[in-house]
Amino acid sequence: MSLSTVKILVASDIHAGYGELKQPNIRNDSFEAFREVLKYGIEHEVDFVLLGGDLFHENNPSRETQLEVVRSIRKYCFNNKDVPIEFVSDPSVNFQHSSFSTVNYEDPNINVGMPIFTIHGNHDDLSGKGLTSLDLLHEAGLVNLFGKFNDVDKIEVSPILLRKRETKIALYGISSQRDDRLCRAFMQENVKFLRPTDDPDSWFNILVLHQNRPRRSTSRTTGSYLPVKYIPAFMDLVIWGHEHESIIEPQYFAPNDSGDGFYIIQPGSTVATSLSKEETVPKHCAIISVREDRKFQSKPIRLATPRQIFVEELILDNPPRKLPKTTVRQPNMLDEEIISKKIEEILTEAKNSRGPRQPPLPLVRLKVVYSGAWLNIPPINGRKFGMRYSDRVANPLDMISVRTIRPEKPRDDLDGPISDRAKEECANIDDMINKYFSTCDIKHKMDVLTDALMTRSLKEYANVDTTYVAADKMFLQSVKNQINVMTDKLKSLDDFAAENVDEEKLEKDILKAIHVMKKARAIPAVNGAQNGAGDAQVNLNLVKNENDDEMID
Amino acid sequence: MSLSTVKILVASDIHAGYGELKQPNIRNDSFEAFREVLKYGIEHEVDFVLLGGDLFHENNPSRETQLEVVRSIRKYCFNNKDVPIEFVSDPSVNFQHSSFSTVNYEDPNINVGMPIFTIHGNHDDLSGKGLTSLDLLHEAGLVNLFGKFNDVDKIEVSPILLRKRETKIALYGISSQRDDRLCRAFMQENVKFLRPTDDPDSWFNILVLHQNRPRRSTSRTTGSYLPVKYIPAFMDLVIWGHEHESIIEPQYFAPNDSGDGFYIIQPGSTVATSLSKEETVPKHCAIISVREDRKFQSKPIRLATPRQIFVEELILDNPPRKLPKTTVRQPNMLDEEIISKKIEEILTEAKNSRGPRQPPLPLVRLKVVYSGAWLNIPPINGRKFGMRYSDRVANPLDMISVRTIRPEKPRDDLDGPISDRAKEECANIDDMINKYFSTCDIKHKMDVLTDALMTRSLKEYANVDTTYVAADKMFLQSVKNQINVMTDKLKSLDDFAAENVDEEKLEKDILKAIHVMKKARAIPAVNGAQNGAGDAQVNLNLVKNENDDEMID
Repeated sequence: MSLSTVKILVASDIHAGYGELKQPNIRNDSFEAFREVLKYGIEHEVDFVLLGGDLFHENNPSRETQLEVVRSIRKYCFNNKDVPIEFVSDPSVNFQHSSFSTVNYEDPNINVGMPIFTIHGNHDDLSGKGLTSLDLLHEAGLVNLFGKFNDVDKIEVSPILLRKRETKIALYGISSQRDDRLCRAFMQENVKFLRPTDDPDSWFNILVLHQNRPRRSTSRTTGSYLPVKYIPAFMDLVIWGHEHESIIEPQYFAPNDSGDGFYIIQPGSTVATSLSKEETVPKHCAIISVREDRKFQSKPIRLATPRQIFVEELILDNPPRKLPKTTVRQPNMLDEEIISKKIEEILTEAKNSRGPRQPPLPLVRLKVVYSGAWLNIPPINGRKFGMRYSDRVANPLDMISVRTIRPEKPRDDLDGPISDRAKEECANIDDMINKYFSTCDIKHKMDVLTDALMTRSLKEYANVDTTYVAADKMFLQSVKNQINVMTDKLKSLDDFAAENVDEEKLEKDILKAIHVMKKARAIPAVNGAQNGAGDAQVNLNLVKNENDDEMID
Repeated sequence: MSLSTVKILVASDIHAGYGELKQPNIRNDSFEAFREVLKYGIEHEVDFVLLGGDLFHENNPSRETQLEVVRSIRKYCFNNKDVPIEFVSDPSVNFQHSSFSTVNYEDPNINVGMPIFTIHGNHDDLSGKGLTSLDLLHEAGLVNLFGKFNDVDKIEVSPILLRKRETKIALYGISSQRDDRLCRAFMQENVKFLRPTDDPDSWFNILVLHQNRPRRSTSRTTGSYLPVKYIPAFMDLVIWGHEHESIIEPQYFAPNDSGDGFYIIQPGSTVATSLSKEETVPKHCAIISVREDRKFQSKPIRLATPRQIFVEELILDNPPRKLPKTTVRQPNMLDEEIISKKIEEILTEAKNSRGPRQPPLPLVRLKVVYSGAWLNIPPINGRKFGMRYSDRVANPLDMISVRTIRPEKPRDDLDGPISDRAKEECANIDDMINKYFSTCDIKHKMDVLTDALMTRSLKEYANVDTTYVAADKMFLQSVKNQINVMTDKLKSLDDFAAENVDEEKLEKDILKAIHVMKKARAIPAVNGAQNGAGDAQVNLNLVKNENDDEMID
């Protein structure tokens, strides 16, 4: 290997602190994986670590979680090793958020042997005053936070310029932005990538970002994702954070059919934060080696410590014997037998495939689908059933998810996308309602009740601490409230007060008003803190609500 | 100066972040003072900085405040200066809370030129999981946190042992503890101070603590403070944190009349966190020089940046002309004229005495006392009046406090201490009720209503966002609730159910029960999170409630 070769460890979505409060079984998983990643960096003597955002799982991580992260960074990144990478760009541009005007490894008072460069993700997003938890780490000299923008509508991406002998790297970062707004900024050419004026083609250009990669909305024109076509062709390598599925082999893209394209590496998360197929793909980080001739190699490293995760489906369609119709479950019903058998199979597989450094209890999600004659019996209680496995799986309470498929009745107010959606995978009520309403077209949403209300209320039914009577009461009260709000709103329409009402126009106005209110009160996006949802902001115009795109973890 | 002389900068109660949210005028004061202190450390080339607790004002400081503190420490404490102090005690004992087993300046990866040693105060107290915000700073290598105890009932204080050539210092720390529990631990001889076995008398012994110093309760046998007599005579110097009044000249105490005593330095706070006389004493830090012969000198440094603060009283007793009785205030009433004149005097004095580095707007508190014929008119509205000075004082809204003294009617259920208390200084309703009930003897507390209820309810009357009608309603509802609770409790007394009641005994039992409930429901102490206050914990015995001592800032 040439002395000019730059070695970079890339990883993303560490989600430190995931499960800390509610899932004691897995509370240390995220820390374990982070340490494993950092150790590979030491072992491979990388020049620096590049993270794709979401170092922390919570915007406001607990003291314990911050302590763990600080400990790991100080332990693995602070040492006497020389960092042979010269930092040649203007720190006052790259780190304008900081009062220390250099990368941490050039601070003479801290011996950083393995610097971390990171953008922030949607989980460690800016809080009220424009600070993320990563700012604190930056200011303490623990990481180098870059790619921070306060105004997404006009972005000037100024690269961090690094040089190791003959190899020159321009590191561009765009921290997590709302997909729709970033798309719009790209469309309107409000995203500018600055390039070194001195021999620009001699630089190896890396872009790190943290956005949705596949289309995530069918109703929004922008699709709530960042299309690859927007990424400038002069990039050589894109590190794509935010997506938890590890696609560690570099994939080539030539956005303009010009032949001049770039590679994308999607490291994926280092810890599973949902029980989904994407998270079952083995977890990775990668060592990138960039040569002076602007060629690079990527060596994926499969992580050895992440917990096993199994996400499977069990479709019950033809019972082996007759099932008399009943509304009451009996002990040891036939479905239970079949489900137990399936779980045992999974647990056997888990036992046989467990790596030596993996924790003993696997994460398991079995989606049980009831259809046909199986609909004669009430489906199994997943939580109760799961409890029996509390010493064998890490997530007994949500190990089983249940879905029933009833024969579809033709309904003329529902079209393709919705019936498709009924077949989609859903982990819990919350997910299901969320997915249903967030992806369906606005005209299919409910007429007066809103999805937010439905979600809140129905969750109460699933909450083991709430009685059905209490949930009923809550639900009815919520409905009443919502109807009152809507009624008041409608009464305030000018035409209601007029004497000679143009009824057609009034109806149209009412529909418009409902439409706008529904949009404004829709389920807030994952990071949709700005999503007003208050009545005060609702104007009776068919304005485009800019705040309801969706993001995944 | 001998090469063996150890120079220590001592300061306390930095209260970083004080006023951050609610007092924009003074939001930077605490940071400014902290920087000033650290700069003196640099200037005087001290060997280390010793803080007496309450580095942060909030137990959970904001990200902005943490950032400021991290910035200042990294800026002033990280440098190439040699720290000629050898750390010779067992780090696994001194820093058992940490995963880094040494003082920060001995970590080869951090160049600490001016280490900070600190205990934690009541403001940066332990949260649920036993971590303070200072743990995070410690783990990041920014400070050395010591004197942390999880079990106050049995404390073994193991000193940090430091050596500079011939001078040997044993640094004992006791972080903020509940005064009563600490007292009890001392009384029961459950506080042990370990001493070096090797020539114990050759060490200069410093104790840093963070407790109430004057008696702060007349009802509790322990008095809610730490009597000096408990401090072992082998100490040479005590740094007393928590008390905001700066008593910077060392005061000598010989607890056992043995002639072998110690000095106390009470640095005081570096920022005023209340408008009290104690805070008007000039702010200081001090440079202590300890020689190899165990003699020390202290050089006080008056801080130049803290904001001016004036706390004065204006007693209105004999009006210069007749005041007709009225319940309605008119514009420009006579009192207003007198008050304005007094404020102008204060502002002139402020202008004349302002140091070059002090911020322009002073903190002013004028306590206006109405008595005699002045009671014919309603007192001034302090908030409204203060607003006129919003560009001339830092705290216009609470610049004026008002008190009325009506002729005392003899009441046989009130004795000395309470009438005295009526003359005490009180900044607001909250303070007043709190002070009244927390210092009066239990037998004078209300019979069924509790002081906690009164505080909460009466605060509502003072709250500008609440209408009087709403406050009335709230108050009545609270009273009703409390009466119900008490009634239920009393009904549950065994004797109520008995047929032949011994009425005398029943009355006694009832009084006992009320007494116990009152104690259990008393105003919680400042850090009284453990103060149950729930009915569930109340036993019908005259037990000593261990949780209702008070603490000041």
